[in-house]
Amino acid sequence: HVPDFDPVAADDATVTGPNVRITVLSARVLRLEYDPTETFEDRPSQLVWYRDRPVPDFAVTRGDDRLVVETDALTLEYDHGIEAAFTAETLSIELEDGTVWTYGDENEGNLGGALRTVDEVDGAAPLEDGLVSTDGWAVVDDTDRLVFGEDGWVEPRDAPESSEDLYFFGDGQDYETRLADFRAITGEVPMIPRWALGNWWSRYWEYTQDELRGVVEGFDERDIPLSVAVIDMDWHVVDNAYHDGWTGWTWNDEYFPDPAGFVEWLHDNDIKTTLNLHPAEGVHPHETQYADFAEFMGIDPDSEEPVEFDAADPQFLRGYFEHLINPMEDEEGVDFWWIDWQQWEQSPEMDGLDPLWALNHLHSLDRTRTGKRPFIFSRWPGLGGHRYPIGFSGDSYISWPSLRFQPHLTATSANVAYGWWSHDIGGHMGGEGDPQAFGELYARWTQFGALSPINRIHTTKHPFVDKRPWEFDGAITETLEDALSLRHELIPYLYTMAWRDHTEGVPLVRPMYYHHPEAEAAEESVHQYYFGSELLAAPHLSERDDETNLARRSVWLPEGEWFDFVTGEYHEGGRWLARYGDLADLPVYAKAGAIVPMDADARADTENPERLRIVAFPGADNTFDLYEDDGTTTAHRDGAYATTEFAQTFDGDRLTFEIG
Amino acid sequence: HVPDFDPVAADDATVTGPNVRITVLSARVLRLEYDPTETFEDRPSQLVWYRDRPVPDFAVTRGDDRLVVETDALTLEYDHGIEAAFTAETLSIELEDGTVWTYGDENEGNLGGALRTVDEVDGAAPLEDGLVSTDGWAVVDDTDRLVFGEDGWVEPRDAPESSEDLYFFGDGQDYETRLADFRAITGEVPMIPRWALGNWWSRYWEYTQDELRGVVEGFDERDIPLSVAVIDMDWHVVDNAYHDGWTGWTWNDEYFPDPAGFVEWLHDNDIKTTLNLHPAEGVHPHETQYADFAEFMGIDPDSEEPVEFDAADPQFLRGYFEHLINPMEDEEGVDFWWIDWQQWEQSPEMDGLDPLWALNHLHSLDRTRTGKRPFIFSRWPGLGGHRYPIGFSGDSYISWPSLRFQPHLTATSANVAYGWWSHDIGGHMGGEGDPQAFGELYARWTQFGALSPINRIHTTKHPFVDKRPWEFDGAITETLEDALSLRHELIPYLYTMAWRDHTEGVPLVRPMYYHHPEAEAAEESVHQYYFGSELLAAPHLSERDDETNLARRSVWLPEGEWFDFVTGEYHEGGRWLARYGDLADLPVYAKAGAIVPMDADARADTENPERLRIVAFPGADNTFDLYEDDGTTTAHRDGAYATTEFAQTFDGDRLTFEIG
Repeated sequence: HVPDFDPVAADDATVTGPNVRITVLSARVLRLEYDPTETFEDRPSQLVWYRDRPVPDFAVTRGDDRLVVETDALTLEYDHGIEAAFTAETLSIELEDGTVWTYGDENEGNLGGALRTVDEVDGAAPLEDGLVSTDGWAVVDDTDRLVFGEDGWVEPRDAPESSEDLYFFGDGQDYETRLADFRAITGEVPMIPRWALGNWWSRYWEYTQDELRGVVEGFDERDIPLSVAVIDMDWHVVDNAYHDGWTGWTWNDEYFPDPAGFVEWLHDNDIKTTLNLHPAEGVHPHETQYADFAEFMGIDPDSEEPVEFDAADPQFLRGYFEHLINPMEDEEGVDFWWIDWQQWEQSPEMDGLDPLWALNHLHSLDRTRTGKRPFIFSRWPGLGGHRYPIGFSGDSYISWPSLRFQPHLTATSANVAYGWWSHDIGGHMGGEGDPQAFGELYARWTQFGALSPINRIHTTKHPFVDKRPWEFDGAITETLEDALSLRHELIPYLYTMAWRDHTEGVPLVRPMYYHHPEAEAAEESVHQYYFGSELLAAPHLSERDDETNLARRSVWLPEGEWFDFVTGEYHEGGRWLARYGDLADLPVYAKAGAIVPMDADARADTENPERLRIVAFPGADNTFDLYEDDGTTTAHRDGAYATTEFAQTFDGDRLTFEIG
Repeated sequence: HVPDFDPVAADDATVTGPNVRITVLSARVLRLEYDPTETFEDRPSQLVWYRDRPVPDFAVTRGDDRLVVETDALTLEYDHGIEAAFTAETLSIELEDGTVWTYGDENEGNLGGALRTVDEVDGAAPLEDGLVSTDGWAVVDDTDRLVFGEDGWVEPRDAPESSEDLYFFGDGQDYETRLADFRAITGEVPMIPRWALGNWWSRYWEYTQDELRGVVEGFDERDIPLSVAVIDMDWHVVDNAYHDGWTGWTWNDEYFPDPAGFVEWLHDNDIKTTLNLHPAEGVHPHETQYADFAEFMGIDPDSEEPVEFDAADPQFLRGYFEHLINPMEDEEGVDFWWIDWQQWEQSPEMDGLDPLWALNHLHSLDRTRTGKRPFIFSRWPGLGGHRYPIGFSGDSYISWPSLRFQPHLTATSANVAYGWWSHDIGGHMGGEGDPQAFGELYARWTQFGALSPINRIHTTKHPFVDKRPWEFDGAITETLEDALSLRHELIPYLYTMAWRDHTEGVPLVRPMYYHHPEAEAAEESVHQYYFGSELLAAPHLSERDDETNLARRSVWLPEGEWFDFVTGEYHEGGRWLARYGDLADLPVYAKAGAIVPMDADARADTENPERLRIVAFPGADNTFDLYEDDGTTTAHRDGAYATTEFAQTFDGDRLTFEIG
């Protein structure tokens, strides 16, 4: 479980001064280390793994107790005569546009990033700072992050408490470049399994094997595409004499008398599955895996001493996978895991080690042991979390404010290179009453879900809250089916965008200011977003008007030509558009010349479609490279993939479409 | 060399009367046999091979010395009391629209068909009658055609001289149905090799191996696509003591010291080749093949008695292929043959046997011995010739009238199901003077050639007449290159049309009235034609105006929407269009919704393109099934082919293009 680090920067890229070391990672990115012992850190941190970047041209001048490092974009000044440390008086960096950053400056123009969880919040939750800022710069403080040691696991830094390890990004308002620079030193976003882009079914419910099978069959009978069936925590035994039962590892044979057989059945029906985990309680004597795991940990099973969850202990971690995770992957065929960590943020055994980060990191790596792609369904662990898709945003309230916050969070998370959110589509809690009462909200949520990274329908453990599509009235049901079918059809496009995210670092969903940093409207239109390279999505997030039975959606269309993705209607950009639509209305706009490949058969599986539907729009020449691979393995890193170019050019009414 | 005949009609489909037999081949097609001995013919004729068609519903009434056969479309009346024979007074057929055909009626409304050759004619030559007629009926007299006997070869009929064997087509003005009915009883058009659709180079010239290689290399160096290099009669020894040397079978080692090696070189360069043959003189002692062939024929080689060409002799025919044709195919790698028969029309050994027909028939069949497709380059042998593509129209004059006649002939030949003409593109003779003097004519001819079935550039044996594209001035050269490149790019489309011709009986080129029989303008616009399922071609056939330097082309656009294939300009149909264009102008119109697949790389070979270019037009939903196979073999008859459907639909500005 050790990544292929490349943490040592070139000697030529480093500049030392009294108590500091400046590493020129690029003309726009500097690493600023302060250490009174002048013992600097070359080991990979939890965040930064690749410091060995190409050395840009830069000049170093010394004299008069002053160190100056000048790149093409930055001019760092360190006045060590005043104090050989980082202070507002000693350290400053001037950007290319004349902006001067001074040590300690607050990044007031930060546009926000991701968040750990939306739990307990109904609506907008406070976002962490991201890397995007109207200030033109961003500082990532890496001082407190652990570093990887000799044992391949993280350990505390040797640096003194006053030491500082900062990364300065000074690329102005070139947000794309900033994220590219960040990705260059922190790592890339891995490809996710193709099937993950399909529709998910998730419910906090004590499903029996047969009951869940019935749900899946229900989707199949109605030709509603489904690719993932989530099994919440009640897959395991919860009743025990040791703890509340949230943590569990033993299949509940009352609900799942034949787990392996059931999973095999799911697979035969082109359904992948995941199990919800709450690892915090470790493993207690009642668990099937306890005896072996206890012995592995040097615990006499007869003592019935529990195996405590210890993210700092490599032994525990090794055992965790070997005795808990890997057996169920291999024996029952579990496809991936849903880590529902909500407990402590810092390991009692090691300061700075967040169990959530540890689990995400290790689970992602561990999944590759069988050639499968890194893939874990867990909460955002903080910066660097983009290496561990996909994110679980937490238990959402069944409310319009909670719905509205999801596209906002999804978009701004691009500011931290985090693009694979799996929100609770439809919400989790607070849906009191009959499911028909939440029909419109659920319909809109599902439409947003179809235009989100991961479309996971979710329901809480409430008998009156049921989100099966066919349990609603005609109009709601039709809207749900349309949205889910559209989602499935978009998989060819979405998968190519996943590849784009992987190779170019452009998330599927990104805020408007990502491409229009200078536009004021872009910063304000936080609830719409670019949806891939071709589309702009602005799903309805509010109730229909009682009078007209229409919902109103304000959409900001950037300069240029835009087309309604569904109707093909033309819209001139560079203005705000007030769109009114009925329940079936789905505001998605295609850019001029947009090329959107889709699966022609929404009834099919998530594999490469037998019949491909290309949706195209006029107004500009465009090229789209459709990406295809086996959908599940890491073989694509060895060139096992195919790209089919679609290029369109217009001459009068003549459309030339080249394929290959 | 025996086809799979099915010549016996069902008993239920036959009606006999005094001296006659009526065979109801379909509700619209009747076979009318008169034989005073009442011995009727069930053997396959040179034309009709498939009489065993589904029996339609029909009624027979007898009485008062009168026989009446009534189908859904036809009512035949035979008044045998007057005379038990076919006369104007005894035989009549009433069509569905009330038109009455009487025996002996001239088909005055016949729109013409094909012709044997354009030799010695400068301009329009008289056409044979076709099956299309404004009269609403057509009669094919099969009486004088030979029948296939027990030996698998043709022989004279046993019928008395007064006997008659007629086929009546009475489908009104449904020209498509008529040709389908004709094809149903006569046979289908076989697939031609894919490479035949590329550009051909043909010159009546004493090419040496090296010289022809130089020509091919010239095309290659200039990135001008070429797929077939024709070697005229001087490939063989012409000087001999026995005859004028037109017939020859021995490679002239002075010109071709290494024929096998040269052909191999051609093949390595993706060039197919053919040798010109004048078989009439048979084989004389000076030929390399003489000794063995003589012995095969029971001729003492020492006697030096020539092996006479005898199309009636099965032994000769067998030897012809085994000793002359097959060895050069197998040993030298000759791809196909150009039968340049201009001698006698009737075999002295068998009346009614046209050596041209015999050669076409046998060559076509023989080529399949190695799994290759039937393919022979020869003159039109008469009705039924559609089974033996491709046609050599003869030596054309280098003149504008001769150019104008070629599209006319090509279009009207669809009236006899004959669609694969290989005209002398550029003309053959009369090109006196410097090639620059014929620049414009040659340019226009090449443009037509690109829009013709087989694009064979041809030149005569005149040192001042040279049609190599690069031998002209800039504008002419550019036009030639553009036309040849366009041709090559169109191969994916053309090949699909070849498949369409094979399976549906719709030729690549067909006259306007083929689809618009009721339009007067369609009959008059004889020099334009439908070019495949998607296009309408009306190449420039006249000189540019001295004043404006523009050529004027009158184009009749049928009702509907049309688009300039090159520029995409829209044109409303249902009217005559006066088009003015410069030398580069090529009038080709795409129908509403047209889908034209092209090879994106004109520099490539004729194989399935690595990069496909789809040219599409708006105005209608359309589906195009791109056809692909190995391009050369008959494996397609066993299902060894692939069809890729391209379907486009429009919704506003939204274009949906489905592939698969």
